[in-house]
Amino acid sequence: MTINGTSLIGTGTAPQDTPTTKPFRAFNPAQGAELETEFYPATKADVERAATIAHEAFAVTKNLSGKTKARFLRAIADGLQNVLPQLVEVAGSETALPAARLEGEVGRTVLQLRLFADLIEEGSWVAARLDSPNPERQPLPKPDVRSMMRPLGPVAVFGASNFPFAYSVAGGDTTSALAAGCPVIVKAHPAHPATSALTGEVIVKAARDCDMPEGIFSLLFDSGFEIGTALVSHPAIKAVGFTGSRRGGLSLVETTQKRAEPIPVYAEMSSVNPIFISAGALSARRDALVAGLHQSVTMGLGQFCTNPGLVFLPVGEKGDQFVSELAAKISASAPGSMLSGGIASNYSEGVERLAHSEGVTKRARVQAKGVLSGAALFETNAQTLLDSPELGNEVFGATTLLVRYANTAEVRAIASSLEGQLTATLQLESAEWPQHLDLLALLEEKVGRLIINGFPTGVEVGHAMVHGGPFPATSDGHTTSVGTRAIERFVRPVCYQNVPNDALPPELQDGNPLGIRRMEDGQWTNGE
Amino acid sequence: MTINGTSLIGTGTAPQDTPTTKPFRAFNPAQGAELETEFYPATKADVERAATIAHEAFAVTKNLSGKTKARFLRAIADGLQNVLPQLVEVAGSETALPAARLEGEVGRTVLQLRLFADLIEEGSWVAARLDSPNPERQPLPKPDVRSMMRPLGPVAVFGASNFPFAYSVAGGDTTSALAAGCPVIVKAHPAHPATSALTGEVIVKAARDCDMPEGIFSLLFDSGFEIGTALVSHPAIKAVGFTGSRRGGLSLVETTQKRAEPIPVYAEMSSVNPIFISAGALSARRDALVAGLHQSVTMGLGQFCTNPGLVFLPVGEKGDQFVSELAAKISASAPGSMLSGGIASNYSEGVERLAHSEGVTKRARVQAKGVLSGAALFETNAQTLLDSPELGNEVFGATTLLVRYANTAEVRAIASSLEGQLTATLQLESAEWPQHLDLLALLEEKVGRLIINGFPTGVEVGHAMVHGGPFPATSDGHTTSVGTRAIERFVRPVCYQNVPNDALPPELQDGNPLGIRRMEDGQWTNGE
Repeated sequence: MTINGTSLIGTGTAPQDTPTTKPFRAFNPAQGAELETEFYPATKADVERAATIAHEAFAVTKNLSGKTKARFLRAIADGLQNVLPQLVEVAGSETALPAARLEGEVGRTVLQLRLFADLIEEGSWVAARLDSPNPERQPLPKPDVRSMMRPLGPVAVFGASNFPFAYSVAGGDTTSALAAGCPVIVKAHPAHPATSALTGEVIVKAARDCDMPEGIFSLLFDSGFEIGTALVSHPAIKAVGFTGSRRGGLSLVETTQKRAEPIPVYAEMSSVNPIFISAGALSARRDALVAGLHQSVTMGLGQFCTNPGLVFLPVGEKGDQFVSELAAKISASAPGSMLSGGIASNYSEGVERLAHSEGVTKRARVQAKGVLSGAALFETNAQTLLDSPELGNEVFGATTLLVRYANTAEVRAIASSLEGQLTATLQLESAEWPQHLDLLALLEEKVGRLIINGFPTGVEVGHAMVHGGPFPATSDGHTTSVGTRAIERFVRPVCYQNVPNDALPPELQDGNPLGIRRMEDGQWTNGE
Repeated sequence: MTINGTSLIGTGTAPQDTPTTKPFRAFNPAQGAELETEFYPATKADVERAATIAHEAFAVTKNLSGKTKARFLRAIADGLQNVLPQLVEVAGSETALPAARLEGEVGRTVLQLRLFADLIEEGSWVAARLDSPNPERQPLPKPDVRSMMRPLGPVAVFGASNFPFAYSVAGGDTTSALAAGCPVIVKAHPAHPATSALTGEVIVKAARDCDMPEGIFSLLFDSGFEIGTALVSHPAIKAVGFTGSRRGGLSLVETTQKRAEPIPVYAEMSSVNPIFISAGALSARRDALVAGLHQSVTMGLGQFCTNPGLVFLPVGEKGDQFVSELAAKISASAPGSMLSGGIASNYSEGVERLAHSEGVTKRARVQAKGVLSGAALFETNAQTLLDSPELGNEVFGATTLLVRYANTAEVRAIASSLEGQLTATLQLESAEWPQHLDLLALLEEKVGRLIINGFPTGVEVGHAMVHGGPFPATSDGHTTSVGTRAIERFVRPVCYQNVPNDALPPELQDGNPLGIRRMEDGQWTNGE
């Protein structure tokens, strides 16, 4: 596959217009140098064209069967696997992520595509409900009422910097939107345009092979914010998927709230993923906790939404030993290139801010030169954090703040003032459960996922996963961006009253021709 | 039951503070005179107290079993039935609604309470999902991941003027929030404070009888906007339910978006509920259509969210006959007292605006004097509406605009520019289906409910109903405010990773102790 640097508007083979915009180039973060390929920012006319054909495509995609959509998703998955070496090479040059990580991430992306394919092929996800009519009812006849989830319309997806595959062009947002029956227009992340272009070509080829309508997919390049803003402002766009910074997510929310028709923005934004370590856990398995926390903090240079930024640790000698041992491990961590220069400098600023905060002690800081960034470790006490809650703000990268506590009342006080989080973790022994149930109950109100005796990094892709949480972890706490529940973001219930059987979607027809699970007069049936 | 005119803060028996605010009185719209009972607006301290005890109560209510919550809802239903005559009398004096309508509405309110009680007693609504662990998986062990819907926290509910029971103090929003496990604070609609107070007393008694926590319910009075604004701005409030005007709903959205933690607002706001009448339907059953439309437009003086405000009718002689026959029926409709003086004057202004619009012809206008309002009928053509889409704006009351069309292309052009609607209706004969499928598909994208050969008024309370729709029908098109799907507004998915069985909610425990339907490793199980 070759990359010509222009946006992909639709899946047609018509020659693209000669680009008129000033090109930009991606950066190789490991080499600190620009890459060769030039990419031409999309124009507002491109946005208009992509949105128009997406709107037209929606008339087709909204009625595609689960089987047909599943075939398309699997064709994308196959296509990604076919060009795996090229994907890994190109993404490596644009992100400095190691090949093993990138191979794993393509695997996860393929898994997501196949998981959603299975879900929609089976078909029960539409939550079909039927209430029988009763023409004899007094004083008024009871109508025939049926409802199910239907797709919203074209969806705008923003590629994430830290997941060039799993949350970019063919990632979880795109997959769940296509699975729902929504056309997708992706705004490629400017840090990995060539990776985006290759992935986009895979989707375009799959769409053609599967006879999908022209506008089911488009990919737009831009190195700034103009095209993204124009995209989410376009009346044809009905929802937005985003993974990134709090500032970026809130800006999209603000833009879409100003539309004549405001639309939902599913932005996964900000989280410090607190971990609580009990006295019992510290005594029973300090080595494992030190090793596990070290790995969770430093893995991938800490460039994960679920990176633990706040760790509650008991005061006293065992806690002191934990700090020294973790500090030694952190200090020995190899520095590396972060995803982009901007991320590296933000990380460096965040670390410096902590280092100069009153009441905060630096326990480790890997010195790194040039394009490299190194891990860090800080320590404070519960009262300092209570007095200065801004110390708990997210620093995206391989650093964490250890918060020494004298009693769990201090932890509860901090927990009750915490903002919404993607995750919270409790490390504790079985015998300690009774005195920690209130902390568990408190944290449950703050997070999308509660973890016991584990670490927050490593988000399992499955049916039960929730990668979401109250604001500001996400802009909409009702949802998840990982796992099959994510399809619910791009649908809404539509009700059909006294609609003749032939004009109903097959999911709602008499006799349940698709054999899906439905609620009929309040009873769940299995479609048998 | 007696009414003392003060807000009900919690369910305790502690004496209420002596009110310090300037009281207001409700108005008898049929008599055009103030009623006797004085009501004291709540203070900001009342809001603070109600929100604080609601927050405390949530620690209990979120873990109440479905059985316990169902018992509470049924106790409210029983309580309402016990004081039915008093409720109807008091509501009649405050709303001018006839006794039969009010009795029916209490019946609907009771039905809603019992329907949600059944739903939560059965328990499967929580959408429990379990993904099995696999400690042997390579390269990383697979964790135990389980998730289910959990309540959001205290909910603010705004009573609606046009449904003093079904969408007020013990109405659909309150019922679905309580069913979800959320405490509720109701801001009573100032047009029916005595009705609200009586209903509130029923809820308080039921809460005491069922040993509910103090803060599970509060009721606040105010004749202005200050208390409602303070309520939805309080950090303890996690969601808002509202039925009313577009201006009111948008103002709540704006207020809540400014919070440090924005919260969801479920506002049901504005809809003109278009009806399309085909040439075939007009030929085959003109009499029935005239009678049905007359009833749907004038019933309850048109004070329903689903009142049809826009009716597409073919040009030509049969259409002309339809217009004359409907005009005769509308002209013969009895005038009546609308719900409040404000609603009556808004209606009158809307009718006058249409009467003086270019290209619009007045076909009927019931003259009404003093406190009475009368129905109206207007006619225009498709091109005029295309040129002046504001003619299609909602006029709340018993009037409709007949839009004469020469061909369905005109109707499609109007339909494609329509804003989101609660409903759309097609009146057509079987043989006409093929040439109207595109109109059906177009309208499906605009509405919460599609109706064939019926009328939009009369919203069936059931499992399959969707009373919602894209903006501005509602502020959040993902939801419904009628039917059991409404519970989904007040919950979010929470995920439990490697949480010991005893610490899990029973819905997620091993062996499925509640016997509910769950998704286990992607397969739906019956709980058997």
